[in-house]
Amino acid sequence: MLEALAAANCGHAFGYGHDDRTRAVQELFAEHFGDGARAFVVFNGTAANVLSLRAACRRWEAVICADTSHLNVDECGAPESIAGVKLLTVSTEHGKLTPELVESRIERRGDEHAVQPRVVSISQCTELGTIYTQAEIHALAEHAHAHQLVLHMDGARLSNAAAALELRLGELSTEAGVDILSFGGTKNGLLGAEAVVFPKPDLAEGFEFVRKQSLQLASKMRFLAAQLEALLTDELWLRSARRANAMAERLAGSVREIPGLTITQPVETNAVFATLPASAIAALQERFAFYVWNERRAEVRWMCSWDTTEDDVDAFAQAVREAVG
Amino acid sequence: MLEALAAANCGHAFGYGHDDRTRAVQELFAEHFGDGARAFVVFNGTAANVLSLRAACRRWEAVICADTSHLNVDECGAPESIAGVKLLTVSTEHGKLTPELVESRIERRGDEHAVQPRVVSISQCTELGTIYTQAEIHALAEHAHAHQLVLHMDGARLSNAAAALELRLGELSTEAGVDILSFGGTKNGLLGAEAVVFPKPDLAEGFEFVRKQSLQLASKMRFLAAQLEALLTDELWLRSARRANAMAERLAGSVREIPGLTITQPVETNAVFATLPASAIAALQERFAFYVWNERRAEVRWMCSWDTTEDDVDAFAQAVREAVG
Amino acid sequence: MLEALAAANCGHAFGYGHDDRTRAVQELFAEHFGDGARAFVVFNGTAANVLSLRAACRRWEAVICADTSHLNVDECGAPESIAGVKLLTVSTEHGKLTPELVESRIERRGDEHAVQPRVVSISQCTELGTIYTQAEIHALAEHAHAHQLVLHMDGARLSNAAAALELRLGELSTEAGVDILSFGGTKNGLLGAEAVVFPKPDLAEGFEFVRKQSLQLASKMRFLAAQLEALLTDELWLRSARRANAMAERLAGSVREIPGLTITQPVETNAVFATLPASAIAALQERFAFYVWNERRAEVRWMCSWDTTEDDVDAFAQAVREAVG
Amino acid sequence: MLEALAAANCGHAFGYGHDDRTRAVQELFAEHFGDGARAFVVFNGTAANVLSLRAACRRWEAVICADTSHLNVDECGAPESIAGVKLLTVSTEHGKLTPELVESRIERRGDEHAVQPRVVSISQCTELGTIYTQAEIHALAEHAHAHQLVLHMDGARLSNAAAALELRLGELSTEAGVDILSFGGTKNGLLGAEAVVFPKPDLAEGFEFVRKQSLQLASKMRFLAAQLEALLTDELWLRSARRANAMAERLAGSVREIPGLTITQPVETNAVFATLPASAIAALQERFAFYVWNERRAEVRWMCSWDTTEDDVDAFAQAVREAVG
Repeated sequence: MLEALAAANCGHAFGYGHDDRTRAVQELFAEHFGDGARAFVVFNGTAANVLSLRAACRRWEAVICADTSHLNVDECGAPESIAGVKLLTVSTEHGKLTPELVESRIERRGDEHAVQPRVVSISQCTELGTIYTQAEIHALAEHAHAHQLVLHMDGARLSNAAAALELRLGELSTEAGVDILSFGGTKNGLLGAEAVVFPKPDLAEGFEFVRKQSLQLASKMRFLAAQLEALLTDELWLRSARRANAMAERLAGSVREIPGLTITQPVETNAVFATLPASAIAALQERFAFYVWNERRAEVRWMCSWDTTEDDVDAFAQAVREAVG
Repeated sequence: MLEALAAANCGHAFGYGHDDRTRAVQELFAEHFGDGARAFVVFNGTAANVLSLRAACRRWEAVICADTSHLNVDECGAPESIAGVKLLTVSTEHGKLTPELVESRIERRGDEHAVQPRVVSISQCTELGTIYTQAEIHALAEHAHAHQLVLHMDGARLSNAAAALELRLGELSTEAGVDILSFGGTKNGLLGAEAVVFPKPDLAEGFEFVRKQSLQLASKMRFLAAQLEALLTDELWLRSARRANAMAERLAGSVREIPGLTITQPVETNAVFATLPASAIAALQERFAFYVWNERRAEVRWMCSWDTTEDDVDAFAQAVREAVG
Repeated sequence: MLEALAAANCGHAFGYGHDDRTRAVQELFAEHFGDGARAFVVFNGTAANVLSLRAACRRWEAVICADTSHLNVDECGAPESIAGVKLLTVSTEHGKLTPELVESRIERRGDEHAVQPRVVSISQCTELGTIYTQAEIHALAEHAHAHQLVLHMDGARLSNAAAALELRLGELSTEAGVDILSFGGTKNGLLGAEAVVFPKPDLAEGFEFVRKQSLQLASKMRFLAAQLEALLTDELWLRSARRANAMAERLAGSVREIPGLTITQPVETNAVFATLPASAIAALQERFAFYVWNERRAEVRWMCSWDTTEDDVDAFAQAVREAVG
Repeated sequence: MLEALAAANCGHAFGYGHDDRTRAVQELFAEHFGDGARAFVVFNGTAANVLSLRAACRRWEAVICADTSHLNVDECGAPESIAGVKLLTVSTEHGKLTPELVESRIERRGDEHAVQPRVVSISQCTELGTIYTQAEIHALAEHAHAHQLVLHMDGARLSNAAAALELRLGELSTEAGVDILSFGGTKNGLLGAEAVVFPKPDLAEGFEFVRKQSLQLASKMRFLAAQLEALLTDELWLRSARRANAMAERLAGSVREIPGLTITQPVETNAVFATLPASAIAALQERFAFYVWNERRAEVRWMCSWDTTEDDVDAFAQAVREAVG
C-alpha cells in the first residue's frame, strides 16, 4: 500500500480527483462492477453509507434495514442527523434481511403521516459475519425494484464475502441487482479509502455535490485512489480477504471444543462470535484488544484481518483455552 | 370556543405573543402546572413534540420512546428530519414505558459510535388509550433524572387521562416529574392550539428561537391563546374530556358482548380498540369515518370526542351489531 | 371571519384536509390562480416560504433573493436550518430583483465546490412596500426559466400589490410566470392562514409529505380553509387590501410636508417608511406600536391594515406632527 | 511524509485514535498551542471548519465571516446544510475582518425573528493571501469575547502566515485569543490530515460525538496522526511554508513589471493574484493548472507550494511574459 502511495506521490497532479490515479481507478471499478459504473472515492465507511442514503432519499423517504446494522447502531445517529432519513428497522436472524422481512415495513404508501420507504440497505457480510448468497441478493433486488425501492449494500467487507463464496466482487453485488454499493477498502488492508459505486448513472446524478457538501471531497484524491487501485489490481483484494477468512476459520476450529465457550454465529467470513465466562473475557482483554459484542450475554466478537498470521491465531487460541479453562 | 375568539378579536393588539390574551394564558398555565412554569403556544401537536426534542437534545443525543408512539409512527419522520434526533424505540405492552424498558436502551455512555440518550418520551394517554398512573410517572421521572435524562410527555390527550383518574392536570404531569410537556388542546375541542410547557426555566432557555425557527410563531397569537385560555378556565378541559371518556365507556359497554368482536386494549380514556371481521369494517366505513389501526389484524380504533352524544354512540353501536351479526 | 369559522364549525368533519371547506377552497384557488393550480394550506407565512424552498431544492441547491427579503432577515435562519438551503443574496434598490441582479448570482454551474442556484425568490410587495409590475415579473420568470430556475413569490401581501395595480391575483403572480406562490392571508385580515400554491402539478409532487414533516398539517384544516375561502370570495381580499393601501396613502399625504420628516420609499401599498428625529420616534412609541426599521438611520415603518380607519390615521398623523415639531 | 506513514504502519495498533501516534500528536499540539489544548484529527479542511461551527453553535446561532471566505463561497453550502448555521457575511478589503466590521453584524440581540451571532470566523491567511497580525487577532478576540462571541480561525494556511511573520503557530492563533482553530496540514505538504484545536476544554465538550456523527472519525487514525506529527516536529511546517512563501515572492517579483499585468493583492504568503488579458490566461491554462479567481475581471490566483522549485517559478514567469507580451 505504501508503494502505491509513493507512486502516487511522483510529480505534480491536479486536485479534487482530476488526476491520473483517480481516472485509472474509475476504469478498474468499471471492470469489477460493470460498464458504466461510476465510483466516487470517499474517506471512510460511515461516509460511504450515509452519503448513499442522502443521495437516494428525498426528505420524507426512509431506509429499511436490519436492527443490528452498522447504520442503525454504530454511526452515532449520522443517518438521521446528517442524511435526515428515518431507519425502518427489522429484527433478523443472523443479521440478514429477506423479502418477507422487507415487506413487513412497506406500508402506508401515500399516507402523509408516515415516511415512505425508498431504500433497502443490506450489509455484505453482515455485522454478524454471515453472508448473503448471490441468489438471496438477487431476490432482494427483484423484490425491492418491484416496490420502486433501491437496493443499497454496505460492502465494507464485500471482499470477505466474495472470497468466501469464490465469486467476483460484481457477481455478489451490482450484477445481482445492487443499485448503490458502499465498497470498503479500509477493513481489507487499506490505510483509509472507500468508494460509493453506482452501476447505473441515473442514481449518481448530482453525487459530486453530495460528496463535497458532506465533507468528503479529498483535495489530494490520488492518495486515496492509489490505494483502491492497488486493491483492485492483481486480485490483492482476494488474497487479503482469503487470508482473513482462513484465519477466522482456523480460530473457530481451535476454540470450538473448549468447554464453557460457545460459538454463536456461523463462521462464514473473518469474524468469530462466541460466548464465554465474563472472567475469561476480562482476563483476555488485559492482553488482547477485541470488542465485547453484548455485555449482557458475555458475547465477544473476534475479527481476523489480512495481516493476521497463523502464529497470531494459535497464540490467541491458547490464551483463550487458558482463560476459560 | 368561538366566543373566546370573538373576545380576542376586539380592538387592536400587539403581534407575536405580546398581547393580553397570551399574558393571561401564561398565568393559567402557571396555575395548572406550577409557579414558574413557562408555556409556549404553538399550532399543532406534531410541532409541540418535535420542538420539545429539538430544544432538549444536542445533535448527538437521542430519545427513548415506545415503538408505538406517535413520534415514531405518525410524524412522517419529523423527529429525525426536523429535530435531527434518533429515536431509540422499545416494544411495550399497551404502549407504556417502564423504568426497566427505559434502562434497556441506556447503554454505551461515552461511546462516540453511539447516540447518547437524553430524553425519555411518554404519551399520556398512550396511543392505545391506556394511562400512566401518577406513581408510574413519578417512577419514570426519578429513573430518568438518576440517569441525567429529561422526561418529556406527549400530552395531546393529557386531559382525558386526568379526567379518568380524577386528578388535576399538573398532578399527572409536571408535579409528578415531567420536565417538558406537550399540552394538547386540539383533541379536546379547540380549533387548533397546543403549548409546550416547561415547569422549570432552565430547559426553556432559547425556546423562543426554536419556536420561531421551526415555523411555529403565530403572528396573531392571541387567537390561539384565547382558545387555551377558555380550555383552562372553569374546568372546560375537564368537562370536555369527561364526556369523551364517558362516551367511549358507553360504546365499549354496548359492543363488548357482540360475538365476533373483541376489545383489544383496556378502555381507560376516549378510545376503543377492537378486532372484528374485515367485511364488517368495510361495511361500517361506508357510513362512518374511523381509523383501521392494523390492517393485518383487522383491528380498528374508535375515538370519542367532547362533542360525541349518547345518540351518536347508540346509533354507531347498533350499526356495529348489524355489520358483525 | 368569525362567521366563516362558525359556519365551518357545524357538524362533524373529516380531519387533515379531507373536508368540504378544504375542497371548496381548492376550487377558489384554481379560479384565482389557474386551472390545475393546487393549494396547500399552512399555518403561517414563515412556513409557506420555507416549505416552498424545501420542496423545490435538492440539498445542494440555493435560492437567489434580495438581501432585504424577509427570508434573509426575519426568519431566524429557518431557510438554512429547516430547509437546509443557502441564500445567495443581492443588494437591491427598493427591495426589487431584476434579471441583471439575478444573473450576477448565476455562476459556477457544475462546480461541485459551489451551491447551484435553483430558485429565484421575490416578495410582492417587497419588504419596502414597493411593487413588481406584471411586466417585471414576467421578465424575471422568463429569465429564470431560461436558466432552469424556478420563480418563487413571497406573496404575504400580494393582495395589496394587486389592489394597487388593479389586477387580479393571478395576473400578478402565476399568470406572469410564478412557479410557486406563498399566498398570504394573515396580513390581510385573517386570524391565521396561508397557502402554498403551485400552478403546475409537477413541482407539487410530494408536497403533502413536506407539509406534514415540516409541522404544518392542521388536523382541523377546515378552520383555516374557511378563512381563506372567505378571503377569496366576493373580493374580500380586494376590499381589505384597498382600504389598507388607501390608509397608507392618506398617512403619507398627511405627514409628507412635516419639516424634519422624510419619506424614504415610494408609498405603493400599505407601508410608509420615514426618517424622523430619534426623540420623536421615542415619543411616538410611548403611545403607538410600530417597528423601527433601521436604528442607525432613525427610519421607521408604519403599516396600515384592513381595519385601520381614517380617524386612526388622522390621530396618528397629528401625533407625528406634534412629536416632530 | 511517506516515511512517517511507513513508521505508523509497523505492528498492530488500536483503532479510532486509541493508538500511540495519536497520543503523541496530542502532545505536540499542546506544545504548539498551549497546555491543555485538545486536538481532534479530521480528514480535510472543509470538515475542520464545518465541525467547528456545528460544535459551537446552537441551532439558532450564526457565524460572522467575510463574504470572500472559503466557508461562504467554496464549501457547497456545507455550513448551512450540514452545520445548519446561517452565515452573516461582511464585505471586506483584502478579505480581512475588523472589530468594526464584526460590530456591524451584531444586532437584534434577543429578537426571536433574527439568528443570534455566536462565532466570528476569520481565515489566516485569508483567501486573498493577506495576513492578520497578532495584534489584529488579539483585537478581534477581545471584541468577540466582550460580546459573548467565540473566535474561530480557518487556519488551512496558518503555517504560511506564521512563517511570513516569523512567529510560532500558537502566537498567531490560540495565544492571541482564538477559541477554535482549524489547523491545516494538507496545503502544507501532507497527503491529507487536518485538526480542530481547542485551547480550552469547555468548547471541546462532546466534540468526539460531533466528529463521529459528521463522518470524520478515521478508523486507522494513526496514518493521519503520523502526518501531523511529522509536520509539527523539527519545524517541518516552517520550512515547507517558508519555501512556498519565498516562491510566491519570487514569482511576484518576476511578473510585476510585465505591461498588461497587474498584481491585485498584497503578496504576503504563498499566493499571487493578478489581472492579465483573457487571451493570455487561456494560453497559460493550456500548459499550467491554476484557478481563475474572477472571470469577469480576468483575475487569476497563482499558488506556490512546499515543493515548488525556483526552476518551476522561473519557467512559469517566462511563460507569463510570453503569453501577455
